[in-house]
Amino acid sequence: MQVKEVLLLLTDHWADWEASYAIAEINSSEKYSVKTISVDNIPKTSIGGLRAEIDYTIKQFNRFDSLAMLILPGGFSWGEHSYQEVADFIEKIHEAGVPIAAICGATIFLAKHGFLDHTKHTGDEYDYFMEQLKGQDYKGQTNFVSTQLVADNGFITANETSALEFAREIFHVLDLDTGDEIDAWYEKFKHGMMR
Amino acid sequence: MQVKEVLLLLTDHWADWEASYAIAEINSSEKYSVKTISVDNIPKTSIGGLRAEIDYTIKQFNRFDSLAMLILPGGFSWGEHSYQEVADFIEKIHEAGVPIAAICGATIFLAKHGFLDHTKHTGDEYDYFMEQLKGQDYKGQTNFVSTQLVADNGFITANETSALEFAREIFHVLDLDTGDEIDAWYEKFKHGMMR
Repeated sequence: MQVKEVLLLLTDHWADWEASYAIAEINSSEKYSVKTISVDNIPKTSIGGLRAEIDYTIKQFNRFDSLAMLILPGGFSWGEHSYQEVADFIEKIHEAGVPIAAICGATIFLAKHGFLDHTKHTGDEYDYFMEQLKGQDYKGQTNFVSTQLVADNGFITANETSALEFAREIFHVLDLDTGDEIDAWYEKFKHGMMR
Repeated sequence: MQVKEVLLLLTDHWADWEASYAIAEINSSEKYSVKTISVDNIPKTSIGGLRAEIDYTIKQFNRFDSLAMLILPGGFSWGEHSYQEVADFIEKIHEAGVPIAAICGATIFLAKHGFLDHTKHTGDEYDYFMEQLKGQDYKGQTNFVSTQLVADNGFITANETSALEFAREIFHVLDLDTGDEIDAWYEKFKHGMMR
């Protein structure tokens, strides 16, 4: 069986927790191997102060035929840079039919670059993007909890508090386990070990 | 104001998610800086495949007067190695009165080396340690959820599904924010952004 790669695209001040559950499970599977990628090969420091080494640069990467997914964790850099080369890379991956999973600031980046224009959104999710894009504070809505995550048209998007839901959706798309196993994993981590 | 250091002790196959929430918030505070430490200065690869660079080796570290806490994430190595030098380092830090926070496999490591003998445990927590030490499967008890975390005698311990509760307790011990702010942070990440 060919091991497929899942790329984790790191930027400066990437958010430690957002893709943490997802990559730990994915990389533990025999089907997949997680690799880091960035605009250059300088280690990228997380919000928590971890310097993570980089496996591939965007320019050098050409293993699209063995690529299973691109994951974009959030972080403080997404709002500060235009990252046109990242947008071009995402475009190329999307056109190759490879799913892309983004959380937090990376979701706003996708919206800014028009990648989410043709995806379905719940009203809340769309409003949330728009408020973020306008740089305004979002006024919470009580029913947003159920719409923390949207998966559609090759994109999975989630907000910063949804690391577990983000991971669960990624596992479904990657067919990492059976649906029951994925549900059991989620319940365990959402509600505690011994429930 | 002197910035105090919080050490994250990394071992091979450290668990990506377990200390992720904690270090992101701690390192965002003006009061603290997170640094990585290990038995040597070779980058340590997480379960998820991230290679994190190491700031200090245990042998070289001597900045105990500006040390605020030692955090031990779990991972696959704790059960495979005796890590006597790590146990000696923990002993030194504990004697200096610096709090130590351990989760998952690192908690079992502390128990094995006798660090938790004089801490209070709930019956469930103690039974859980003992079962792990005997290498037996733990038969879940429905009331274990409320005892997922124990903080006592300079040690904070938690199980692998309690990354958020682990972080919350660490924030209290480090006086990172007011109690209300810490509670609000926890509620947001436990139950979703817009609740």
